[in-house]
Amino acid sequence: VLTLYSYWRSSASYRVRIALKLKGCAYQYAPVHLVRDGGVQYSDSYRQLNPESRVPTLVSGSLHLTQSMAILEWLEETYPAPALLPKDAAGRARVRGLAQLFAADVQPLQNLGALKYLKDGLHVDAAGVRQWLQHWISRGLAAFEAHLAEAPAGRYCHGEELSFADVCLVPQCYAARRNGIEPGAYPHIARIEALLQQLPAFIEAAPDQQPDAER
Amino acid sequence: VLTLYSYWRSSASYRVRIALKLKGCAYQYAPVHLVRDGGVQYSDSYRQLNPESRVPTLVSGSLHLTQSMAILEWLEETYPAPALLPKDAAGRARVRGLAQLFAADVQPLQNLGALKYLKDGLHVDAAGVRQWLQHWISRGLAAFEAHLAEAPAGRYCHGEELSFADVCLVPQCYAARRNGIEPGAYPHIARIEALLQQLPAFIEAAPDQQPDAER
Repeated sequence: VLTLYSYWRSSASYRVRIALKLKGCAYQYAPVHLVRDGGVQYSDSYRQLNPESRVPTLVSGSLHLTQSMAILEWLEETYPAPALLPKDAAGRARVRGLAQLFAADVQPLQNLGALKYLKDGLHVDAAGVRQWLQHWISRGLAAFEAHLAEAPAGRYCHGEELSFADVCLVPQCYAARRNGIEPGAYPHIARIEALLQQLPAFIEAAPDQQPDAER
Repeated sequence: VLTLYSYWRSSASYRVRIALKLKGCAYQYAPVHLVRDGGVQYSDSYRQLNPESRVPTLVSGSLHLTQSMAILEWLEETYPAPALLPKDAAGRARVRGLAQLFAADVQPLQNLGALKYLKDGLHVDAAGVRQWLQHWISRGLAAFEAHLAEAPAGRYCHGEELSFADVCLVPQCYAARRNGIEPGAYPHIARIEALLQQLPAFIEAAPDQQPDAER
């Protein structure tokens, strides 16, 4: 039995939800409210599972797995079908590079913790925080678009098969829109995102479909 | 023939240098000066190799690989010995989680681009930038230490064998010291770093040993 500790709006949690759905893995959903009560992720009980006080955490028996990209790799090794990495090393490197572009170069700068520290720790005003967000998100989307443009056109981010790159793209587009950046401005991204948003796994993993979604 | 586009102080470049040395891969060193001339990484010629204008890039024939964690995985698949990931899926997930803790939760917040934007884009003063750096680095080291403390003690970050976690730890300690945080305050980290710093691969990959090092 798998249990996913997740927050509906967290893009790292959203990635793992998509991968679980694509692989057909049933899981229990354990909400971790990142804002309420000063952030449930900082509680002693959650820190036992995840010392970095981040979501997601995936629990499988006595294992507790942290870091969304490490969890995606574990899912790929443990539930190999359908594959979310290509078979060739060059393709795998490209897909992982695309995924890391968002996981390492955008998401850490846009997450709640970073924004809260800008505001409360450095006293950056709301306009400044928005400028910061838009800068890093636009920069990341433009670089991702450039990577997509340099490869032969495929159905998805890497050819005809779904991959970690697609799993990371949709949550990044969601975060972009929340922050006033329209991913539709990037033609390859826009085309692929529209396709992905029609797939059941992506629909079911969406933030507003989660038990802890707020309206 | 491998060519590594690197900047001596970049911790992402440093990770890849360590892995190349551990695996005994010869490579040509191509320096990319991140500061001079407004940043050589933004030049058109470098963007052809790396659309996100980041270091490192590893070039192997017609392949150009971006994102340090994707490059480490490619090296592991292409040059499997000595292994830098354990054989079991749970161990691999732990090692990747430890590596991502620095790659996704610390390095993006401490890199030159982020600091420059705080200063020039948001007009945060030098004391504020230092406070930001020390906050994220301390937070990351404390979380990494908590992960190390919860596992049975081993020689290195994950048992008796070197792994991606060790490859990422030493560059993070270097970045910590540069920014006034002493990793020696974290006992497991301090013990393991001292061991790693005696190994030839780590010595040869160190920033001050690179052709572009400035003194």
